[in-house]
Amino acid sequence: MSFPLDTLHRQWIYRQHPTGLVGAEHYVLQEQRLDTTLDRDEVLLAARYISVDPYMRINQSAKPTYNPEPHPLNTVQTAGAVAQVIASNTAGLRIGDWVFGMTGWQTHARVHVSALTKIDPAIAPVSTALGVLGMPGRTAWFGLTEAGKPHAGEIVVVSGAAGAVGSLVVQFAKRHGARVLGIAGGAAKCAWLTEVLGADWAIDYKAFDHADSLSAAIQNLTGGVDVYFDNVGGMATDAVMPLIKRRARIVICGQISQYSGGLDVPEMGPRLLHHMLYQRATIQGILARDYLHRMDEMLHIVAPWVKAGELVFEETVIEGFAQLPKALNSLFTGEHRGKLIVKI
Amino acid sequence: MSFPLDTLHRQWIYRQHPTGLVGAEHYVLQEQRLDTTLDRDEVLLAARYISVDPYMRINQSAKPTYNPEPHPLNTVQTAGAVAQVIASNTAGLRIGDWVFGMTGWQTHARVHVSALTKIDPAIAPVSTALGVLGMPGRTAWFGLTEAGKPHAGEIVVVSGAAGAVGSLVVQFAKRHGARVLGIAGGAAKCAWLTEVLGADWAIDYKAFDHADSLSAAIQNLTGGVDVYFDNVGGMATDAVMPLIKRRARIVICGQISQYSGGLDVPEMGPRLLHHMLYQRATIQGILARDYLHRMDEMLHIVAPWVKAGELVFEETVIEGFAQLPKALNSLFTGEHRGKLIVKI
Repeated sequence: MSFPLDTLHRQWIYRQHPTGLVGAEHYVLQEQRLDTTLDRDEVLLAARYISVDPYMRINQSAKPTYNPEPHPLNTVQTAGAVAQVIASNTAGLRIGDWVFGMTGWQTHARVHVSALTKIDPAIAPVSTALGVLGMPGRTAWFGLTEAGKPHAGEIVVVSGAAGAVGSLVVQFAKRHGARVLGIAGGAAKCAWLTEVLGADWAIDYKAFDHADSLSAAIQNLTGGVDVYFDNVGGMATDAVMPLIKRRARIVICGQISQYSGGLDVPEMGPRLLHHMLYQRATIQGILARDYLHRMDEMLHIVAPWVKAGELVFEETVIEGFAQLPKALNSLFTGEHRGKLIVKI
Repeated sequence: MSFPLDTLHRQWIYRQHPTGLVGAEHYVLQEQRLDTTLDRDEVLLAARYISVDPYMRINQSAKPTYNPEPHPLNTVQTAGAVAQVIASNTAGLRIGDWVFGMTGWQTHARVHVSALTKIDPAIAPVSTALGVLGMPGRTAWFGLTEAGKPHAGEIVVVSGAAGAVGSLVVQFAKRHGARVLGIAGGAAKCAWLTEVLGADWAIDYKAFDHADSLSAAIQNLTGGVDVYFDNVGGMATDAVMPLIKRRARIVICGQISQYSGGLDVPEMGPRLLHHMLYQRATIQGILARDYLHRMDEMLHIVAPWVKAGELVFEETVIEGFAQLPKALNSLFTGEHRGKLIVKI
């Protein structure tokens, strides 16, 4: 089956392994006439919102990560996208329907219906399928509840607190009755954390030269840490580790400070595992994919909060397919708040 | 009540905080006439075996550890001891009875009966109350079963494998059906691990200049690590961390490579927490005291193995009360196997 659509199909091809920051130089833009052939139960999609996420840089590491092999060169950059059906050869999806799929950095995709999740635009803006109601939301929810296990009255410290996952963790932890300190870069993000997201305290790590002074500031505000939800690693972790309390839970969700080179050739930092012994604490690494089959559990709780307008799920939207590599780069350097997405 | 005993009471007094290795220079020997006064339900003890353990050096750290305050200066060094009752003012204990108590580095002690555990010499040599049937055994058993959770067929790596705790972990892990690699210092310890304790493999870390080559050797033998029971930290951990498999469990029981200074001013090492993320692994610190109330559970299982002669619980015995500080020092420098104890 073929559809009479005369459209340009644009793809960002991952061409070169970055050794430091990832950026436009590691990609090449490829254009061709869109192939509109569809097999049975396939649909043709036009991407409307495409995701850039820190995990993409992990997949570009030279060494094995959570995937045995790095992202293959000379293929479309893997990514989640929110798309609309523009041609359908299946009963389940009609032209105009919204779906989420791992269709990558391309304007269009031909996909089997089994690889797609239908989005109900009545619940929330469709772009939330890339954020609060998608992978970052799932990561924040299950990382906090399954590994962090916060209790009312406890102290939760979140690094990368203004990011896609961190900004949700701050709010989820507050809903658990915890007192929450967010670590972020810059005064503007910190003001947003306390004034908009409801964090009890926020600390701008850029105002500190060394982990010791950062540590003293956190100690001063919190008196000690029960749960550390870590998106960043490096100096933030060096500062928090000596402050953990008895049976603290440390959740390793990301190590974004290390993604630009440090993963392949580890950066040096202070050895701090003796604190685990002192406090009989736990460090647990978590990954969104492990909770994919439990998405319904999370949506059952979080979607009503979104629908009722009780959660802040800020999106930083960059316009234009051409901006994707720069948008990915800006995850590691930029000033965005919440979920960074590219609108096509 | 007073007893007519004209005996010298000797005590090792902890006098000075070590900044590096601990040794005789940090102690002073004090002698006095033994006070034989006993209140109701007190006994007078003569120590027969006194313990030296790595945790003593942790308690001498300048910074807070698992105790909020370091070991107080100018007091008797805290330690476990196996002792005999030489005078009794309680119905429950008679002269000649064997007990375990935290009576410290002294030849005699006056103790309330509630602070003592009676030892049955019919079960095993009484000195095992300082080893396999005491704190080290409890640490090995609960650290492995509650935090390590080995399964049949899994790979368990033990650092400090020839030590008091490690040598038991090797055997307990084998009994769980795991394949076990022990890391120890020197060819003699390694031969003991495989030939006597039943480890599948042993590696002499002293034969390696760098964590990378040690890591390659471990990888070569095991193919990857499910449980890492760590008594040592430092280079051993650097070598194992990149080899952990999906959902690996890392048990931090000790960090003996760091005790001589590194705890106060942390040594630098490679940042490796991203491996936790990749493998969704867990690091858990464990401490013997947390399982004290569950001693019966452990004895119920392990004591029959000891009685039946099915477990190797080697003791390195140093003779003479005067040797205690040197014995402690040799924990960090010496060639002992199994549990190091001082016979009085």
